[in-house]
Amino acid sequence: MKPALIQQINSADTAANLNYSLEQITSVSRQGAELVVLQELHRCLYFCQTESQQHFDLAEPLDGPTCNALATAAKQNHVVLVGSIFEKRSNGIFHNTAVVFDQDGSMAGFYRKMHIPDDPGYYEKYYFTPGDTGFTPITTSLAKLGVLICWDQWFPESARLMALAGAELLIFPTAIGWDPQDGEPEQRRQLDAWLTIQRSHAIANNIPVIAVNRCGHEPDLSGQTAGIHFWGNSFACDAMGKIIACCSSSDNHSMVVDIDVQETVQQRLIWPYFRDRRIDAYEDILKRSID
Amino acid sequence: MKPALIQQINSADTAANLNYSLEQITSVSRQGAELVVLQELHRCLYFCQTESQQHFDLAEPLDGPTCNALATAAKQNHVVLVGSIFEKRSNGIFHNTAVVFDQDGSMAGFYRKMHIPDDPGYYEKYYFTPGDTGFTPITTSLAKLGVLICWDQWFPESARLMALAGAELLIFPTAIGWDPQDGEPEQRRQLDAWLTIQRSHAIANNIPVIAVNRCGHEPDLSGQTAGIHFWGNSFACDAMGKIIACCSSSDNHSMVVDIDVQETVQQRLIWPYFRDRRIDAYEDILKRSID
Repeated sequence: MKPALIQQINSADTAANLNYSLEQITSVSRQGAELVVLQELHRCLYFCQTESQQHFDLAEPLDGPTCNALATAAKQNHVVLVGSIFEKRSNGIFHNTAVVFDQDGSMAGFYRKMHIPDDPGYYEKYYFTPGDTGFTPITTSLAKLGVLICWDQWFPESARLMALAGAELLIFPTAIGWDPQDGEPEQRRQLDAWLTIQRSHAIANNIPVIAVNRCGHEPDLSGQTAGIHFWGNSFACDAMGKIIACCSSSDNHSMVVDIDVQETVQQRLIWPYFRDRRIDAYEDILKRSID
Repeated sequence: MKPALIQQINSADTAANLNYSLEQITSVSRQGAELVVLQELHRCLYFCQTESQQHFDLAEPLDGPTCNALATAAKQNHVVLVGSIFEKRSNGIFHNTAVVFDQDGSMAGFYRKMHIPDDPGYYEKYYFTPGDTGFTPITTSLAKLGVLICWDQWFPESARLMALAGAELLIFPTAIGWDPQDGEPEQRRQLDAWLTIQRSHAIANNIPVIAVNRCGHEPDLSGQTAGIHFWGNSFACDAMGKIIACCSSSDNHSMVVDIDVQETVQQRLIWPYFRDRRIDAYEDILKRSID
């Protein structure tokens, strides 16, 4: 299978951001891409750096203009397309939602971010109601996609549930970056942890992983912090966590990669973790804390 | 905290293997070690390469000579000691068991390997009854230790359960190696997956990890395979998965490292995964497969 990763620097010009994504979709499809993955909230700046009511104006429903444009792009380029929107579900209910369109432009499914972060610079709990889709893979004409979003990547439970439900690969649209005030060793440690935890989901579940992260510096409009330097490094790894290709830390980058989703068949015979899970002894994982 | 890792090449001479371990315990305690971790089944060859009834003669009860020697060593050197035995629990029930002795020589607790592998060269299901200890940390005078064993390392559930129950670090005595007939790229891919999955447990749970693996080549006595080249690479990583120190692939190596178990306090504020776990949506993790 030939997925493409589109990593981009965003500006405040949402139309320009979306146009860039659409141009790149056309470009990678001409290079043979069958599946295209965009980054988290690819139409706008990462507005969660501040809590501001006006940002809710960026939200759109699942049949809004961004989804319509993505559906058209999927059909015109005959690709499965994974996009990401700030979803207005109803007055008072907004989600961080990944949308998947099949090669004919129909919506194959959507996933509403289940784990919502909240820490300085990433005030997502203000904007996003926690998802209620559960961890259900989305069936497309190419494969069953385990689509998760950003903060989900730190939770092995998300990856495991997607894999147990038949996901053939994991896909993470994401928006994570460095605090410019952290030193280089700490920045490297964070990036390495981010790569490692996602590669570990491939290893634990014997399936490939694709992560697409934004890049570029975005200022904190409140002026309280030095902003975020989104660290790019969008990557794809195989079913044993080996990195196949990785984008740079700072530049727009679209790349088409080759992923062997069939390798899972063999990997699950060589490393039969699914046979040996101690489901009789896992019940406490449903607890907040084992006191 | 100053843990020591003792990685060793074993021979068929069980007394010599144990003597070497005991000498090294004394040596590392003189270098300041407070906690000493031995590798999986450190008293003997990795007998699970073949299924043979005679190997059950190697098993000992929890109050057998190996445990007695380890208890004495813990007391004499005033260290917390993590050992590993082939346990005879009763006629017909044998376990792969990690034993922990406190600085006064008392047994702090034991852990019976929960996930049992079985694949060519690692016929453990023949020897070891699956553990019934659950994933319960062992309280010592130094810290609460999340002791797991080898195959457990591939299961994020084990690490998560130990952490939720208060483990301050994870410890993996292990015995894993290369098939000498695999090429170097595949060998490197396997070693990297092994390092990555264990580092990921540190990251996902914000706690350090120590893994102690055997090294050296051990032949397959049945002659069916080329044996196992145990790959060493015993390592310690911090609460963000960063490797602090790592042994070589092929040599006896004892090392004392410095681990900051207090870093967890800060890491769990910066990366508050435990706050955000979706325990309302994890129930299917108790299923064998989500069909």
